[in-house]
Amino acid sequence: MKIGVFDSGIGGLTVVKSMLEHELFEEIIYFGDTARVPYGIKDKNTIIRYAIEAVEFFKNFELDLIIVACNTVSAYALDEMRESSPCPVIGVVEAGIQAASNAVNDKDSNILILGTKATVNSKAYEKGLKSLGFNNLEAKATGLFVPLVEEEIYSGIVVESIFNHYFKDVESPDAIILGCTHFPLISESIQNYFGKETILIHSGDAIVEQLEKEFTFTKKYKNPNLKFFASENPDALKAVAKKWLNK
Amino acid sequence: MKIGVFDSGIGGLTVVKSMLEHELFEEIIYFGDTARVPYGIKDKNTIIRYAIEAVEFFKNFELDLIIVACNTVSAYALDEMRESSPCPVIGVVEAGIQAASNAVNDKDSNILILGTKATVNSKAYEKGLKSLGFNNLEAKATGLFVPLVEEEIYSGIVVESIFNHYFKDVESPDAIILGCTHFPLISESIQNYFGKETILIHSGDAIVEQLEKEFTFTKKYKNPNLKFFASENPDALKAVAKKWLNK
Repeated sequence: MKIGVFDSGIGGLTVVKSMLEHELFEEIIYFGDTARVPYGIKDKNTIIRYAIEAVEFFKNFELDLIIVACNTVSAYALDEMRESSPCPVIGVVEAGIQAASNAVNDKDSNILILGTKATVNSKAYEKGLKSLGFNNLEAKATGLFVPLVEEEIYSGIVVESIFNHYFKDVESPDAIILGCTHFPLISESIQNYFGKETILIHSGDAIVEQLEKEFTFTKKYKNPNLKFFASENPDALKAVAKKWLNK
Repeated sequence: MKIGVFDSGIGGLTVVKSMLEHELFEEIIYFGDTARVPYGIKDKNTIIRYAIEAVEFFKNFELDLIIVACNTVSAYALDEMRESSPCPVIGVVEAGIQAASNAVNDKDSNILILGTKATVNSKAYEKGLKSLGFNNLEAKATGLFVPLVEEEIYSGIVVESIFNHYFKDVESPDAIILGCTHFPLISESIQNYFGKETILIHSGDAIVEQLEKEFTFTKKYKNPNLKFFASENPDALKAVAKKWLNK
């Protein structure tokens, strides 16, 4: 299978990392819209427009599947992408909803959803989880998390003060959905803050879980063919890919 | 005079605020590229491309002057904008350099330049100040300041921990250039952190100082004609304009 991975920027590399660890694909084509990143502060219509342009870009390759690694795009533009794409499109939000539901047995469990302003405003996670019977839900737009990761600040006093700012009224949740591809980079700090009982749902692992359920993988690809594209400054994407993926 | 004000997003409204306080212009046309904000994390070539597109947009109006309120654009794209613009273009970086030089008498004074990653990487402030004889310069890319302001966190423990993060090795400077239009919103906290002896240079005041030096204003405009344009979500720009400008 030859797949495309779309993200607003570099964050989707955390999803690629999960897929590489599971050696699922022969060829992965990554596109990060670094010239217009971040999407999480932007308007629904703009996000949809940019997402459709990404589908157009992917038409240059004969893909079997497009994976939307960006939560904000998955929350707003999946239907529109599916309409204009010649191949199936799956997104991390649907995968995350399913993964959370699988990880948490009790329907009364407390689930905390973290995401960008746009993702949280979409209520996509809440709608999905409610339809599966979960009602004890809380969502927080944690706007400083992406810039924290971009500044490579993953732990310490700055992170703690920002956690206290967002979480001062939050009861310790049973599960937390890391509803943005940047957040796995501070997941250790989040885990430490809430304690080891709290289950963290990671978009990359969630999508792998969904893929392994929906498709039959007969072969492992230890050295897949990787291609990275960026709408600006591909060198910056390359540098981060090297660091995060060791590739 | 009918002027255009260009910014990557909403930050340039702090520059408009200064101009309104001085009642300089009959008509102000503001354009914020909210669909692609922020510019401060982006590449030089991308910034230049977007800036030239802004000049094209302003050609729809018969302007007497374009003011670039965004430090990042002023640092990278002023020459290119001037080449393609039918009217003069001035930017906050040149104005800020002049204002700092006027405010600080001693050429040995310590000047701290704060800005986005792109602005700091450009070294535009350092080059200008060095050419005026200042050598005691330090620049810090404070990437978390814009998101702080966007989150409407202007003071308190989060701000303090972030200041400690960026400024732990910084000696108390004689002057600080607030090299991003978002930073005036946390200028009170910056002033408190470094003490009241430190002079803060604000892009809006700097541009007014430059305008009053270069042009003769014979009339005051108490109620200028204001038009706001955004490349996405104009309602969000409108809401912030109402709050920041009381207009």
